Order: sequence, then structure tokens, then C-alpha cells
Amino acid sequence: MRDAVQLIQNARRVFAASHIDHDGDAVGSLLGFAHILRQLGKTVTVALADPVSWRFEHLPGAEKIHAVKPSPDDDLLVSLDASEFNRLGAVLTPNDLAGRPLLMIDHHITNSRFGTVNVLDPTAASTCEILYSLAQALDVPLDPTIATCLLTGVVTDTLGFRTTSTTPRSLEVAQALMHAGANLSEICQRAFNSDTYARLCLTADVLHRMTLDEGVLWSQVTLDDLRRLGVPYAESAGLVGYLNSVREARVAVIFRENEDGRIDVSMRSKPGISLASVALALGGGGHPQAAGATLPPPMNAARERVLAELHKLLAGTTVSA
Amino acid sequence: MRDAVQLIQNARRVFAASHIDHDGDAVGSLLGFAHILRQLGKTVTVALADPVSWRFEHLPGAEKIHAVKPSPDDDLLVSLDASEFNRLGAVLTPNDLAGRPLLMIDHHITNSRFGTVNVLDPTAASTCEILYSLAQALDVPLDPTIATCLLTGVVTDTLGFRTTSTTPRSLEVAQALMHAGANLSEICQRAFNSDTYARLCLTADVLHRMTLDEGVLWSQVTLDDLRRLGVPYAESAGLVGYLNSVREARVAVIFRENEDGRIDVSMRSKPGISLASVALALGGGGHPQAAGATLPPPMNAARERVLAELHKLLAGTTVSA
Repeated sequence: MRDAVQLIQNARRVFAASHIDHDGDAVGSLLGFAHILRQLGKTVTVALADPVSWRFEHLPGAEKIHAVKPSPDDDLLVSLDASEFNRLGAVLTPNDLAGRPLLMIDHHITNSRFGTVNVLDPTAASTCEILYSLAQALDVPLDPTIATCLLTGVVTDTLGFRTTSTTPRSLEVAQALMHAGANLSEICQRAFNSDTYARLCLTADVLHRMTLDEGVLWSQVTLDDLRRLGVPYAESAGLVGYLNSVREARVAVIFRENEDGRIDVSMRSKPGISLASVALALGGGGHPQAAGATLPPPMNAARERVLAELHKLLAGTTVSA
Repeated sequence: MRDAVQLIQNARRVFAASHIDHDGDAVGSLLGFAHILRQLGKTVTVALADPVSWRFEHLPGAEKIHAVKPSPDDDLLVSLDASEFNRLGAVLTPNDLAGRPLLMIDHHITNSRFGTVNVLDPTAASTCEILYSLAQALDVPLDPTIATCLLTGVVTDTLGFRTTSTTPRSLEVAQALMHAGANLSEICQRAFNSDTYARLCLTADVLHRMTLDEGVLWSQVTLDDLRRLGVPYAESAGLVGYLNSVREARVAVIFRENEDGRIDVSMRSKPGISLASVALALGGGGHPQAAGATLPPPMNAARERVLAELHKLLAGTTVSA
């Protein structure tokens, strides 16, 4: 952190970027960082490879985010919330470095430490949680603008303090951000009560056609569904959570036909049931309770293969749901 | 609080009860309070008028909760999380008081202060939040058992820190309870990822038949649906939240046929749209963004009446969703 503080203090013009497929922690940390540095009188350019999602365009300063590369005058480059350099996308590529220092700030345990100076804290539940400490180290007092950006990242990356990554420190930081003027209930409202009609229609279809088969609750999404309802493929993620919330489901699975025709398989399981062996058998990966794989089409064949693996798994497991 | 501490310190046998239609704060505060007092060597009986819901039967000590009245030997009666005396149901009625002191602990602003000693804090987001302070005042150190019960109430009454009632103090208390050994992610998992297959089928039906009509997103539940799917009427609440999460819905409504054949109307609206006048016109009540009413059957007539009122409201309002 001391090296990071020194890099920042010595900089005049700063270029900051976050990752492709941005989420609340990407945008929140990018904007929060920029606001902190502007308090120190720095000029800051904020960049994302993709257009800012409607989910985050209300955040203070979001209108200043563009898909731009650093200018020759920028003397410090900063990567926020990206676990790999190439996750920054087109806005920052090796040719753009040009001998300038790269400050890397992130919380992903798999981070490859690709910066000149690295602030990596895998115990933090979000990159915004780290930026709270950075603001303190830089002696920048929090204002409502900074606090709103940072609390957005804290809230979204912990799914509202619900993930196992949430620590007492996450709550302490959130508390301080509320004291600094961030409105927690409004941030939660925007993060979790903000769906589109088309996506809720997709949810309805997926739930309506779900099947509970000896402890496995599954459903599917086809490209036809997405086209008919006008839902982008990226917005079709997250549906497996509805199925996994069911007590009777020891395992929940969603099969999604993706844009290249292959079948994306998202699996969730109850504590005590590890999906590791199934993910391995399918050539996929993930965590014991949340795993995935991508299989060749057609849908029916992919589904039969996955369900066979899961029933084999459950036949060898005796866990009360 | 000082009077409450004295009452408790002087007591030997304590009878504690919470409210009918119990929720996580009712059961969490009841059990948390009992565990705190047992640390002081008191004998505590815990009572609820209704059998403990499967949602809370895992809480430590839940198996000791019964629908019992105080015994003649009990020298202190305690009401937890009940806004009115009659909310305690059959386990504590005026005849049961028999001149004994009644300690009332609650956070509902509408509380009628019906105790001999009242600990009422409407700024607390849950009764469990108040019990955290009580444990400190009684010098009882928190253990994982107490912390688990109290954090359950903090989490459920704030819908996972999402309500406007959530304060920095709520987060501070939650942080301390995590430090004392409560598992936040497990509590959230049980509170929010614990549905039944039958109820998710009902959700599917309700979403599948929803209609978006000029800013009003509505759907309905009939007694036939509940019988067919085997969902108790009480478990059919909360569906309006799915509809209100949609950006295009300025108002969301669910019509539910209740057991006496009348139609329960649950309405939610986006900030800036007050349902007060509509609730009044329908003979109902509630808050600006969450209101309800009960109308005579049949379903179709009730629905037309409500939709007409809502369209009249929206025609006079110009708010961006």
C-alpha cells in the first residue's frame, strides 16, 4: 500500500481502467478511485472497453467513462478489479504501457500480479473494500460521491453481504461508507430490484418448464427464447439461483444455448454435495457448490450427459437436503 | 434499559414470548434473549402461540419453544418483538399476568408500550439489534449460540440489510455478532435461499401469467392454484416483489384470492409514485410505496376496480421509471 501511495502522490495525470464484462465492483472501484484522486488534484481519465451498463449509468461520474486508451501525457496507469491484464480489453494493451508504471489494485485470489506495483488483498470481498483503505492511506476524507461508488462495489460483489467472502471488515467498511453519506437501501434497490420486463419473462419461462428429477432441479434457455424475448445472452445468467433456492433440490442446473450454438451448463449444489468430480468429467471447472462447463450441441445430448453424471453423483452421496 | 436490567437481575424464573405469525426477528429475539438470561443462571421458558416454522427450527434452542402459558412460579414475563399485547396470542393473555411484572422489548414505532417496563427503540431495525445492547448492559459476553440467534433477527428484519430501516448501527451490530461466531453467509442462505418446490411452481405460474399494461405490471393467485400446488395461503405472500423489480413497471400488483373468498390486493410502486390515494379509495392502507387492501369477490371485478384506480393515478403522475 505504501508503494501505491507514493506512485499516486508522484503522478499528475492518471489513466484508470477496469475489466470487460463489468460489474458493480468494476464500475464502483473505477469511479471511486477517480473521485479519490481528483480530491488530491490529479487529472484522471476513466476507461472501460464496453459501454457502461444501464445498471450503473446513474453512478456519479459514469458519463465520463469511455472506451479510450491512455494519452501520451498520462504518467500513471491503473488497473482496478481485473485479475488478468487482458481482462482490461482494448483500452489497455501491452503497447500502451510505454514504460509507464502500472498500479494494479485487485482482490481476486487468482490475480497474476501483473502490475509494476500490486495492491492485492484476496481477503477483501471487493476491490472497493481495498479502496476504502487506500483513501485512508492517502488521507482523503470520504464524501457522499466517493462513498456511493465504493458502497456499490461492496454491495454488488457480496450479493448484498450474502457471499462467504463477506467478512466483519466488509460490514465495517459499509458502515463507514454509510456514515460518509452513501445510501445503502437505494444502492441495494438499484442493484437487486432492477430487472427488465423481458428478463422477467425469461425467468417465467425458465421456471415454468423446470423439472425436479430425484434431487436434480433443471431447466433450459434456448437462443430462440432469447431472440423471441429480446434478452441479450449476457443477461440470461443468474437463473440457476432461483432453482438452487428450492429445499428439495440437492443440485440445480441451467442449460443455456450460447451464441456459438454450444451449451453452457451452470450447476449449483447444497452444502455437502461437491460438484468437483462432475465438473471434471465434463471438462469444466468452478467451486464445490458452483460449477460449470460448456458442451457441444445438441441441447438434448448435453442435458442427458450432465443429468447422468449428476444422478451418478447423488447415488453415491447421502446428504440430507 | 436500566429498569430492564434491574428487573432481569431480580428475576429467578422467566417466561418469554413473541408474536403470532412469527418471523426471524420473533424467533431470533426469543431464543437469543433466553440464551442471554441462561448465561445469568436464570430459568427461562420460551413460548410461541404457533408451531415453529420449518424456516427457523434449525436455530439453537428452537426445539424448546412450545405453545405454553406461564407457570405460577414464573416471576417475570417478557414480550419480545410484539407491537401489541394481543400479538402474543394465546400464550399470554391478561389473566396470565397475575400481578407479575411484564418487560416489553420491541422496535416497532406503533408499539403501545403495554409493559410494566418498556424497552422501545424505533431506530433499531430489529428487536435483535436491541438485545445486542441489552447483553452488553447485562455484562453477558456473546457466544456463537447467542450471536446466531440475534444475527438471524438482524438479517431477516432488514431483508439482508436492504430496507430503509437499516442503519450504520445495524451493520455495527452484525459485525460484532460475526466476531462472536455467527455465520452470516449461512444465516443468509437459510433466510433467503430456502424456498419449497411447490412455492417456486406458484412463482412460475404467477410470472407466466403477468401482464404489463401501461406501467402497471399485475398478476394473480387463485385458491385453485394454491390447492393444486399444495401451497398454504400464508406462503403465497411476497410475490409482488418480483413484479416490482421490473424497470418498466411503475406500479406492481398481485391479486390473491384468500381463504374466505375475498381478494387481497398487494401493491408496490417506484419512488415518486405514492399509492396513498389508491389505498384510501380501496378502503386499504399501508405506506406510499407499499400498500394493500381487501376487496369483495369476484376476482375480475376487484381487478378492474384496482387497475382503473391505478391508471387514473398514473395518468396524473409524470415520473420517469
